[in-house]
Amino acid sequence: MRVSKLLMPTLRENPSEAEVISHQLLVRAGLMRKAASGIYTYLPLGMRVLEKIKAIVKEEMDRFGGQEVMLPIIQPAELWQESGRWEVYGQEMFRLKDRHEREFCLGPTHEEIITSLVRNEVNSYKQLPILLYQIQNKYRDEKRPRFGLMRGREFIMKDLYSFDQDQTGLEESYEKMYKAYTNVFLRCGLQFRVVEADSGAIGGSTTHEFMVLAEAGEAQVVYCQKCDYAANVEKAEAVPDKIVVGTESEIQLVHTPNVRTIEEVAGHLGVAKKQLIKTLFYKADDQMVAVLVRGDREVNDIKVQNHLRCVQLELAQPEDVERMAGCSVGFVGPVGLEIKILADQEVAFIKSAVTGANKNDYHYTGVSLNRDFKVDDFTDLRMVQSGEPCPQCDSSLESARGIEVGQIFQLGEKYSQSLNAKYTDENGDEKFFVMGCYGIGVSRTIAAAIEQNYDQNGIIWPITLAPAHVVIIPVSTKEDEQVKEAEALYRQCLEAGIEAVLDDRNERAGVKFKDADLVGYPIRVTVGKKTIQDNSVDIKLRHSGAEEAVNKNLAVTKITEVVRDLIKSCQPKYLGNS
Amino acid sequence: MRVSKLLMPTLRENPSEAEVISHQLLVRAGLMRKAASGIYTYLPLGMRVLEKIKAIVKEEMDRFGGQEVMLPIIQPAELWQESGRWEVYGQEMFRLKDRHEREFCLGPTHEEIITSLVRNEVNSYKQLPILLYQIQNKYRDEKRPRFGLMRGREFIMKDLYSFDQDQTGLEESYEKMYKAYTNVFLRCGLQFRVVEADSGAIGGSTTHEFMVLAEAGEAQVVYCQKCDYAANVEKAEAVPDKIVVGTESEIQLVHTPNVRTIEEVAGHLGVAKKQLIKTLFYKADDQMVAVLVRGDREVNDIKVQNHLRCVQLELAQPEDVERMAGCSVGFVGPVGLEIKILADQEVAFIKSAVTGANKNDYHYTGVSLNRDFKVDDFTDLRMVQSGEPCPQCDSSLESARGIEVGQIFQLGEKYSQSLNAKYTDENGDEKFFVMGCYGIGVSRTIAAAIEQNYDQNGIIWPITLAPAHVVIIPVSTKEDEQVKEAEALYRQCLEAGIEAVLDDRNERAGVKFKDADLVGYPIRVTVGKKTIQDNSVDIKLRHSGAEEAVNKNLAVTKITEVVRDLIKSCQPKYLGNS
Repeated sequence: MRVSKLLMPTLRENPSEAEVISHQLLVRAGLMRKAASGIYTYLPLGMRVLEKIKAIVKEEMDRFGGQEVMLPIIQPAELWQESGRWEVYGQEMFRLKDRHEREFCLGPTHEEIITSLVRNEVNSYKQLPILLYQIQNKYRDEKRPRFGLMRGREFIMKDLYSFDQDQTGLEESYEKMYKAYTNVFLRCGLQFRVVEADSGAIGGSTTHEFMVLAEAGEAQVVYCQKCDYAANVEKAEAVPDKIVVGTESEIQLVHTPNVRTIEEVAGHLGVAKKQLIKTLFYKADDQMVAVLVRGDREVNDIKVQNHLRCVQLELAQPEDVERMAGCSVGFVGPVGLEIKILADQEVAFIKSAVTGANKNDYHYTGVSLNRDFKVDDFTDLRMVQSGEPCPQCDSSLESARGIEVGQIFQLGEKYSQSLNAKYTDENGDEKFFVMGCYGIGVSRTIAAAIEQNYDQNGIIWPITLAPAHVVIIPVSTKEDEQVKEAEALYRQCLEAGIEAVLDDRNERAGVKFKDADLVGYPIRVTVGKKTIQDNSVDIKLRHSGAEEAVNKNLAVTKITEVVRDLIKSCQPKYLGNS
Repeated sequence: MRVSKLLMPTLRENPSEAEVISHQLLVRAGLMRKAASGIYTYLPLGMRVLEKIKAIVKEEMDRFGGQEVMLPIIQPAELWQESGRWEVYGQEMFRLKDRHEREFCLGPTHEEIITSLVRNEVNSYKQLPILLYQIQNKYRDEKRPRFGLMRGREFIMKDLYSFDQDQTGLEESYEKMYKAYTNVFLRCGLQFRVVEADSGAIGGSTTHEFMVLAEAGEAQVVYCQKCDYAANVEKAEAVPDKIVVGTESEIQLVHTPNVRTIEEVAGHLGVAKKQLIKTLFYKADDQMVAVLVRGDREVNDIKVQNHLRCVQLELAQPEDVERMAGCSVGFVGPVGLEIKILADQEVAFIKSAVTGANKNDYHYTGVSLNRDFKVDDFTDLRMVQSGEPCPQCDSSLESARGIEVGQIFQLGEKYSQSLNAKYTDENGDEKFFVMGCYGIGVSRTIAAAIEQNYDQNGIIWPITLAPAHVVIIPVSTKEDEQVKEAEALYRQCLEAGIEAVLDDRNERAGVKFKDADLVGYPIRVTVGKKTIQDNSVDIKLRHSGAEEAVNKNLAVTKITEVVRDLIKSCQPKYLGNS
């Protein structure tokens, strides 16, 4: 590729709408442009990155027995009505009608259509397991599309669906995909963690997320440095602190005017935050519930929702709280409440608690469980924090932000039952397929790779994702000798199978260097007046900044070596197909 | 690939909705399934064919300087309103609204969005020419989707757009694409013709279509066997027959009760059909026009429409004809008509014509141009027929049916003007980009390849498109030796870089042979009791039926040779990038 002919519109300024680094750099480096909110055009260099990720994903899916198919983007409503998700999806689903007024959606996911395909085409246990995948555009009408490729409305996913005879088969397919995904992200050169996750609305039980660690991540993960425990904080199991807090004493009403927050109450009364009981009101479907946690803890909504098995859970509105408790939010507590009360298991260890008094400007001290209030259920309802003990070993947990680039699910029979998809087993009995589904956010992986690999000058691509391995820059295109030598090196690189870009623009060297850093080619080769005098070229690595003069006759050999070593550093010891 | 694990649901019966061979065979061979009307799922083998065509297209676009991008499928209405096509497209465009009630369409084509991209990102003549392409799903809400992949509602196209400084530049880009397209279809192993075509609604002037010759084609093409002339019959220039018909005589009203058609009138009056003038009434936008052609010719609506420069042209309703002419359709003629009259140039050579008398059950004989009726315009308005003279040489034209798999257009400034897309030329003046657009129906090419290559047993793939080169069939999977040898050959083929499929199903040999023919692998290798006795394998070619016993130690060498020769026969002498 010659930069003079390449559509690579780099920018010096950050686009105003770009809130995160990856979005800024994708636009500034000329890899993509916005077409509409949450909808992007991939420019030639962005396209090359995309194709590289797709190729890696495809190879790993094939390696583990995946068969590639292509399912339609526009899907008939009937199938979604059959599974019951036509209504559930709500506004996130793009819907349309054809000229005959038949309803369709733009597929946000493909469980329905693949299950319908398999129920029609696969009928014997002999054909199982079967793993089908595609790499395709998906659509979600996000309320607030943002962060560029991290959360778009039109985005690219790889989705694979496994169909097995039973749970044992599903677990084997799941294990294959776990390995395949690990290979994919290792080959992409990314730092990531596989974490236990909550299965949420999609259903099923066991699920893991593949998280690329980066500050801009929307998810919080905790992991153990000693053992292999890692989980999305939404899912992470809390080890209760069983140390008893306080000693039983008398309950007292104390005047706490304008003292509302945990910090304020603890400060005002001179007690530790963990002596307080924090009381939150939730609306769980149509029922009101109170949730209690220790004052120094945060409620984990997902755990509350899973415990209650409700479809919708939201914090109660202040006016609803006021109606139920007779006071404003800052003064609520469990004493005298007549609704269902859930408590985190640690609440049981507070012998003398401080709580709101359900009366404005008053709190109770010396509150005692069972004597002063009752709890309907005790369970783990809180967020885990960094520094807490690992549930698997003694070590303490670390926490980090992560970008979810992949997720694998054991769906079980959820969709095969709702869509009546059955096979005949070896005894001639009809059984439901046992399914798994496995997604990789292909376009999001581009963003995640950048969020993890950049500096103030631009992107620092892992070589396996880079739009090209090397950029060759003649310092001045007005100097014939520089041009000649850069051209010669460019051709030699191409012949050696190196992906080379020649920056043959008649621009100042500074502009070309800045663009090279911005686009993030792993290797930059400079041909200038001084290198020509020295019979050398200058080779600089983007990730380390290391710079070296290399004899020009050895340049291609050196570049080949560097490329090979960089690629090798991204190759996993293959997790093969067992 | 092992057939036992492959999702390849072959059928013995034709699916009821499949009207054409390619649709029947794509479904029967297990390459695709219908998801909704005009919307299909590609199964693993179909996907492999698709990927092969895509790879060929991509290579040829890149060879001629194309840069791959990916434009969005959902496109904002604003751009289409700006170009004026939001209304024009009518019901063929799938439209939808997002949650904020903003209007979008599913792109039926991408001129608007690419022109908008280039007007924002390209501003100097130095960056031109620029050729951008994508391979992507497109959407057209066809009134009657049919013929499987030939006319679907969701289909795959490659579209490339060229941006040049001027007409000369455009012609160079056009020439490049002409060569690239020729390479693509040669490499696909298809028999095709490049024909002059009408530019129709998309605008622009020069355009060529790439037509795969096949009976099921929706288009009619004429071509010269001697010179290189070829055209869509809609566009084909007619050489007028200048032989004078009849001699001037008196006009006479003759009673022709119930004699309406050309055949009936000629028979009844005992004259040659070419002595008749055929009169047709058209509604051109809001105006009524009469069109005259010789009795043995057919009117070409496209030529009429182009001559009139009208947006809509349709044959007048019988009641409208009756109101205008005072008689039913079978008896209309030009004498005494008071509307605009267009005539094909050959009408001028009929000295004594038979025409309708604009009175039921009557015709005129001895009708003379200018004496009895006037013509507003003479021009070429008729269809060319097989056997007529070539407009370029003396030879006679042949005619054939064709499937349009590609079309290239010189758009000129149509879209750059309507979307105000300009660059700055070397004098600092702002000029409109001069554009071309170039499409390949990627999914339609799959259908076209089948329509041209099949027999009663199934598909006969050109090797460059085949889902695999060779299928290896052990006659009985119960015979260990056969299995062992088939497995060994399968592995050797894979190691030699041959795309091999092993039919390891525990099925009768007949079933496996039938499936092999149906799927259409170019080479079939059989391992059976007899071949094992003879220390050989049986190699059979799908396209010729030629069968040969080959020593098993030479089998891989032989297969490699055959594959190489077959691929070679699809390789063009490259039309390089000049």
